Amino acid sequence: MFKKVLIANRGEIAVRVIRACTELGIKTVAVYSDADEHSLYRSLADECYPIGEAPALKSYLNIERILKVAEKAGVDAIHPGYGFLSENVKFAEACAKKGIEFIGPPTNAIDVMGSKINAKKAMKDAGVPVLPGREEPIENEEDAILVAEEIGYPVIIKASAGGGGIGMNVVYNKEELVDTINSTKSIAQSAFGDSTVFIEKYLEKPRHIEIQVVADKFGNIIHLGDRECSIQRRHQKLIEEAPSPIMTEELRAKMGEAAIKAAKAIDYHSVGTVEFLYSNGEFYFLEMNTRVQVEHPITEVVTGVDIVKEQIKIAAGHKLTYTQDEITFRGHAIECRINAEDAINDFVPSPGKIKYYRSPGGPGVRLDSGVFGGAEIPPYYDSMVAKIITYGLTRKEAIERMRRALSEYIVLGIITNIPFHRAVLEEENFSKGNFSTHYVEDNLCTLKRSMMKYAIEAKEDEKIFSDKVFHDNKKVIALAGGLNAYITNVSNKNSDDNKKKYSNND
Amino acid sequence: MFKKVLIANRGEIAVRVIRACTELGIKTVAVYSDADEHSLYRSLADECYPIGEAPALKSYLNIERILKVAEKAGVDAIHPGYGFLSENVKFAEACAKKGIEFIGPPTNAIDVMGSKINAKKAMKDAGVPVLPGREEPIENEEDAILVAEEIGYPVIIKASAGGGGIGMNVVYNKEELVDTINSTKSIAQSAFGDSTVFIEKYLEKPRHIEIQVVADKFGNIIHLGDRECSIQRRHQKLIEEAPSPIMTEELRAKMGEAAIKAAKAIDYHSVGTVEFLYSNGEFYFLEMNTRVQVEHPITEVVTGVDIVKEQIKIAAGHKLTYTQDEITFRGHAIECRINAEDAINDFVPSPGKIKYYRSPGGPGVRLDSGVFGGAEIPPYYDSMVAKIITYGLTRKEAIERMRRALSEYIVLGIITNIPFHRAVLEEENFSKGNFSTHYVEDNLCTLKRSMMKYAIEAKEDEKIFSDKVFHDNKKVIALAGGLNAYITNVSNKNSDDNKKKYSNND
Repeated sequence: MFKKVLIANRGEIAVRVIRACTELGIKTVAVYSDADEHSLYRSLADECYPIGEAPALKSYLNIERILKVAEKAGVDAIHPGYGFLSENVKFAEACAKKGIEFIGPPTNAIDVMGSKINAKKAMKDAGVPVLPGREEPIENEEDAILVAEEIGYPVIIKASAGGGGIGMNVVYNKEELVDTINSTKSIAQSAFGDSTVFIEKYLEKPRHIEIQVVADKFGNIIHLGDRECSIQRRHQKLIEEAPSPIMTEELRAKMGEAAIKAAKAIDYHSVGTVEFLYSNGEFYFLEMNTRVQVEHPITEVVTGVDIVKEQIKIAAGHKLTYTQDEITFRGHAIECRINAEDAINDFVPSPGKIKYYRSPGGPGVRLDSGVFGGAEIPPYYDSMVAKIITYGLTRKEAIERMRRALSEYIVLGIITNIPFHRAVLEEENFSKGNFSTHYVEDNLCTLKRSMMKYAIEAKEDEKIFSDKVFHDNKKVIALAGGLNAYITNVSNKNSDDNKKKYSNND
Repeated sequence: MFKKVLIANRGEIAVRVIRACTELGIKTVAVYSDADEHSLYRSLADECYPIGEAPALKSYLNIERILKVAEKAGVDAIHPGYGFLSENVKFAEACAKKGIEFIGPPTNAIDVMGSKINAKKAMKDAGVPVLPGREEPIENEEDAILVAEEIGYPVIIKASAGGGGIGMNVVYNKEELVDTINSTKSIAQSAFGDSTVFIEKYLEKPRHIEIQVVADKFGNIIHLGDRECSIQRRHQKLIEEAPSPIMTEELRAKMGEAAIKAAKAIDYHSVGTVEFLYSNGEFYFLEMNTRVQVEHPITEVVTGVDIVKEQIKIAAGHKLTYTQDEITFRGHAIECRINAEDAINDFVPSPGKIKYYRSPGGPGVRLDSGVFGGAEIPPYYDSMVAKIITYGLTRKEAIERMRRALSEYIVLGIITNIPFHRAVLEEENFSKGNFSTHYVEDNLCTLKRSMMKYAIEAKEDEKIFSDKVFHDNKKVIALAGGLNAYITNVSNKNSDDNKKKYSNND
């Protein structure tokens, strides 16, 4: 096993990887930018080193600086987390050159999956279902028109190097096709430095369902079931669950088999996720993420397997210690991504200092957080600050627990998207499992109404806190406790009317 | 289902019950003494009412005041938690008289199990294994001498009305027998107002293993497996785990069957725990707790069943929705009871205000806490403030997670027994599962050494915090975040030596 691992990331995923290492008895090395000097993950690591200024290009994306620290600290391996350098072939190769294990798949697998066209070709060849279209770049307009007619409108034009929802445009008729191809090419060129685009069938209201795979370096490969990730906004997942509300044993077996085929086709090892679009009983390869995913905890909760520890053990050359048949699925898990953003005001980011913080807890609640009371959310990175994961024997119970956990979570000083989650968790189509990747836009009116209600509630808490606490600095900590009782007094004025009366009662 | 439930308790169990009710859509009514005005459970309840002065006799044990609130608030049911009125027949009867459902078993079951002699008699009649001895009071010395010789020394003299380890004395030879009977009688008279004592075989190094039962009002009864609770100090459990390290499928089936027999013999419904002593392959009935138990979460974690919700549903007249065969056990769970007490100084209670608080979290960690940053631990009640529960696919993983969670948990301002838990979790006999109820005394030297190490660490954190934060009130909240970084700086002085150097490096 590795003796020391550097975590080339920040925030909650750095915390997550440090926790896995600590449990495995591995020493941890954190790296931090100027903006993360007082961060939670830094305090949990065994060693920590500054790597540069706040902008990611000067710190978390700076391969040279990170490798310098890795050598100085004498680490055996580097865990890249997600985002930043996690799917960067150059970084993986640079690690290898220094004799440091990159905790991830072979570079060739990252490379193939980094190009949407190459990935689709490889998958089609391997017999994994792909969307109708062409697995090659659009060379000329006439050809594109023919393909579009063959597969039928609507079609989608995608940048091969694209990601995060950028460089994808839907076309509903022949008239728009050529213009859209040209505009997508130009966006692709400026965003990714590669104007290659291709064409495929556009599914109007699909579900996003993905399969978690785990593969060791000896050819053993299994899957850990599915995750439903359709609750998104602008291609950013917000709520995930396992299993999908529409999942059946049969469908899971089929999708699992396809995912294993996909991973085998690229000689995969490590953990990874094969994403599919699902529509009308059919599913199609979307992409493969060659890293640990934000939503991995829901799979951990229903299977009992620690995916990050598996990933580290695989990188260290361990064989899988279980077979597909030994993986059991129990109950249902949901994850809400808590972002520092104002859901009411078009989800605008809301960085700042957390003035008061109280975690949810109790039965079936897991919190993967990168913050704490007093923490600063810097404006430079992803706005996700924590993930609440709830478990239930049934989907209904997992939902009830999530509603309860969201109501317990107090984060004052910044605006979070908790009102958004509370709105979704009480919305009927969500409860019924009746949704697609267009859920948010399809239900926006209903969601906005209840988001408003919860946002007002959060603002009231904030006001109570600042009136009572911040204007009386000397008692700050003493009063922090009183916040509870004060809020309770406000909301339960009637029940507390009889206060002190007990002494006259007997 | 009930519409509104009053929780006649405080602290973490009040929080636990409120969470269960909230998930079931039941409104909650909290009652609090003067000492609990700023408590966490109060802030989570829908309504809350003061019931009296801090001493329990004037508040949490005051049946009249609690029932007055119950009527005023119009509740359908009362959940008594554990301790206080949870096994009080008079309270259960008084609830029934007012037409309020007591969330617990029939009063007759509480009554039988409240007397050690009656309980033992009932269990022997039902065919549940009991310790050799007599199931009747000691009437005269000669008889006692004869029984002791028959079953062999050592024997134990027990007060029939005893509890919490009071009124139990071991006798190693005939010479001590008569004196011990007399002294036990007089302790029993003064502590419980009942001098009845009985005699049974004393097991020298048994394990404490218990079975969780769940029974509805329609005669359906199942068990949820075992819990090992041998890590105790003066009969107070400190660490529990599920399953027991020595458990086999066969033993669990046998003990489960005995527990179900025990519950059936007294027409039990609700949740409850049948405690056994285990020694050399045999087990013997110890007592039955006719309420939810502190350590219930470990069973919830390995079975996925919410025991408190089941208890409430049963009281509301719901049938069990699963059979024994549908209960599955997965992995291993451990619970550490976090008490506000100074383990180094003979576990003396350490009430006070929590000045800074940070919860552990992440994979496989559940926290059932009654406190938060700013909370006051009153001196009047039980010193338990929280329970950490960890899960692992194996016992080893659950232990590794617990060690990691304990290292993350920051509670400043009061002294906790976290150093005790850290010491046990790294001690070899514990790791090997090689222990009895005498574990703490048997391993005291080793434990003290490592407790000291962790207590010093906790004191250093405390000092850093008070130097940096409390002497500069204006920045209290701002600095609370800096605590992390400061501690990190202190412990990682070397690795941070190169701070700011990155700017000269390229």
